[in-house]
Amino acid sequence: MALVVIGGVAAGLSAAARARRRDAALEIVVLEKGTVISYGACSLPYFVEGRIREAGQLMVYSPEYFRKERRIDVRTGAQVVSISHPRRDVTLASGARVHYDRLVLATGARCDTSGIAGAGQPHVFTLHTVDDAVRLRRFLEEKRPRRAVVIGGGYIGVEAADALRRSGLRVTVLERSANVLRREDARFTEAVRIQLEEHGVELRCGVEVKAIEGGRVADVACDVVVVSAGFKPNVELAAEAGIAVGPTGAIRTDDRMETSLRGIYAAGDCAEVTHLVTGRPAYIPLGTTANKTGRVAGANAAGGRERFPGIVGTSIVGIFGMGFATTGLSVAQARAEGFRPVAARIQAKTRPAWFGGGNTTVELVADGATRRLVGGSVIGEEGAAGRIDVIAAALHSRLRVEDFEQLDLAYSPPFSPAWDPLLIAAQQLMKEL
Amino acid sequence: MALVVIGGVAAGLSAAARARRRDAALEIVVLEKGTVISYGACSLPYFVEGRIREAGQLMVYSPEYFRKERRIDVRTGAQVVSISHPRRDVTLASGARVHYDRLVLATGARCDTSGIAGAGQPHVFTLHTVDDAVRLRRFLEEKRPRRAVVIGGGYIGVEAADALRRSGLRVTVLERSANVLRREDARFTEAVRIQLEEHGVELRCGVEVKAIEGGRVADVACDVVVVSAGFKPNVELAAEAGIAVGPTGAIRTDDRMETSLRGIYAAGDCAEVTHLVTGRPAYIPLGTTANKTGRVAGANAAGGRERFPGIVGTSIVGIFGMGFATTGLSVAQARAEGFRPVAARIQAKTRPAWFGGGNTTVELVADGATRRLVGGSVIGEEGAAGRIDVIAAALHSRLRVEDFEQLDLAYSPPFSPAWDPLLIAAQQLMKEL
Repeated sequence: MALVVIGGVAAGLSAAARARRRDAALEIVVLEKGTVISYGACSLPYFVEGRIREAGQLMVYSPEYFRKERRIDVRTGAQVVSISHPRRDVTLASGARVHYDRLVLATGARCDTSGIAGAGQPHVFTLHTVDDAVRLRRFLEEKRPRRAVVIGGGYIGVEAADALRRSGLRVTVLERSANVLRREDARFTEAVRIQLEEHGVELRCGVEVKAIEGGRVADVACDVVVVSAGFKPNVELAAEAGIAVGPTGAIRTDDRMETSLRGIYAAGDCAEVTHLVTGRPAYIPLGTTANKTGRVAGANAAGGRERFPGIVGTSIVGIFGMGFATTGLSVAQARAEGFRPVAARIQAKTRPAWFGGGNTTVELVADGATRRLVGGSVIGEEGAAGRIDVIAAALHSRLRVEDFEQLDLAYSPPFSPAWDPLLIAAQQLMKEL
Repeated sequence: MALVVIGGVAAGLSAAARARRRDAALEIVVLEKGTVISYGACSLPYFVEGRIREAGQLMVYSPEYFRKERRIDVRTGAQVVSISHPRRDVTLASGARVHYDRLVLATGARCDTSGIAGAGQPHVFTLHTVDDAVRLRRFLEEKRPRRAVVIGGGYIGVEAADALRRSGLRVTVLERSANVLRREDARFTEAVRIQLEEHGVELRCGVEVKAIEGGRVADVACDVVVVSAGFKPNVELAAEAGIAVGPTGAIRTDDRMETSLRGIYAAGDCAEVTHLVTGRPAYIPLGTTANKTGRVAGANAAGGRERFPGIVGTSIVGIFGMGFATTGLSVAQARAEGFRPVAARIQAKTRPAWFGGGNTTVELVADGATRRLVGGSVIGEEGAAGRIDVIAAALHSRLRVEDFEQLDLAYSPPFSPAWDPLLIAAQQLMKEL
């Protein structure tokens, strides 16, 4: 039996490693079109900033590691140009064919700049691969640019803005929609704006960039541009092989991460998953989901019967030391999904004042019809990750607000206030329902 | 309609305030036998240590605040000596009677030192009230003792040891049972021991103290003693009035916090609650539970229909900067409750190494028969509170390990590793099941 995995980053390598653990005899080949594997894409902004010193630190494992320790044949520079499921093989750019019995697609996503004229100029960068990050950092060191524009106010865009500002540049973020961080939430966006502006980064929403001129984007003068927009799943290879693409534009999968062709699995940034709050397909590409779906795809490709139930859309981003975390749906998103959203938003201390507690803002969103929690956000210098994770766990379990309000959370002055901000928000929400 | 609340600390005042919010016309009287109300008992060790400078900071609200802002008649120095439910009144030590239609018992607990000979000596203290803390701090300042013994390795005992050590004393903790922090878990106790000893505090388990000699407890020389053992719910008043006491020795309540006598509620450290993991009555007195049960008792005493489902036994204690958090049952406790416990314990980083992550230890305990999580512990310098709260939320929802393993938790390098330690522990536990 031969397993071929297309893609050697988070999802692909999780799949390969997990398949090996399930089946010691399986022949496993990983085909990666790039030159490096197993890098932490979420770490790239921290390399640009210099917090990660060497590009080598971005790589978690080497092809040699996989070859020796896991008996997995990882081939870099191996670009797959077509899949023939009837023949059960893939064809590489070199013309060589590789046979498979099971196939895992972990083809990832790309930053598609084709809609932006002038994106090919030498001072314009994306921040998607290790190469991108190395080129950007070298440009910063060699050319010493002073003004940057970041196109796109998603996670990477905002983190890039933070990194560029810390490197001493003046930075403007241009976001096409009215809101940042993929969250339709004006107050959340306002909190992000305040944090950015307090640290010298300008945020302009509602600005669609069609062209990058020599020293200018929209009307903002700049000498370096980072494009963090046009994120698209790499589905062409799959689509040409007859694999169904779902309503989100990513590869459709079932809860075994199997695609519409039996024996072909998909995982990571190229794949659609179920959103557990809406019950509908969603495309929210994140490293955590790539790892999890890769594991499940790999286990099942190796004969297992594992299940990936879905995601609730949890994420956090650090902006100049403040955590901005969201999970589930905002009020606007819940309304668009057919819920009758009711929300409460509170400010509270993360610890007693005499223990140096800071402020945190918690919003909870429930469906008025069922009283189920459907989303939330947490902003704070400390505790934001832990608190958003509690809300995420509640979304997984479809908790109602009255149950959430009674959660038995840990309290001790060095760690939290006697009434946790989550519970204060739940009490407020109970009044609104 | 008249509501009388016996007890003016966490549960009693939560009940009174909540009743007022439900019913603006209710006559509300709070009878507190002591001289101060509304103090944070969990903060007392931090007052002893000096982190809280003034005793006044321990009080959250004054009787005047309640009188003026809430129209609640809070009487201090008002000790209730008996309850007559047929007459619907309580009798004070002064002989005066106070009529009630509804009664909330928030009589708290006490530190019963009667089993220890010599506990009345001037260098022996408990740490249960503001007075206790003020007396202990004054003793430390005036007598400058150099060696302390803490009797009891529960939360307050360990926090007192931390506070005394920070004040420059040599400290030995003597615990009667084999384990500390009410957790039957030898490895958890060992981790506490290591942390204590690294900071110069000696821990001896299995030492039952029957007597305190002049300058010595057991064979440990000392010039100050803190007794943090013999914690007992104050149920005598209730029992004499014919109110049922439950199997734990605390006042029995239903999920409305009503006692066996209709119209009389109990909340806080004097009351039993349901343990949601075992489904059985439990007595785990903590400030968070006092606040929650007080709210529910107050709402229902004022004509509401609120429910307190129960607790899962979550707590955290800080020992020299390290968080020790537990929830649900340990392996030994789960076995004693009739489960077939299976556990996994892992060590992981709280953040990527290049982001300064520290170590954390996570243990998850599941029932092998149902695969449900039944408990867990988290030890770490950061993130312990947030992570134990996620496990607590899972216990509330009766999550199975395979569901917990797929939780969509937040990830970003400044906050967490791509595989959260909770998920690594769940993956390990899946292998053990």
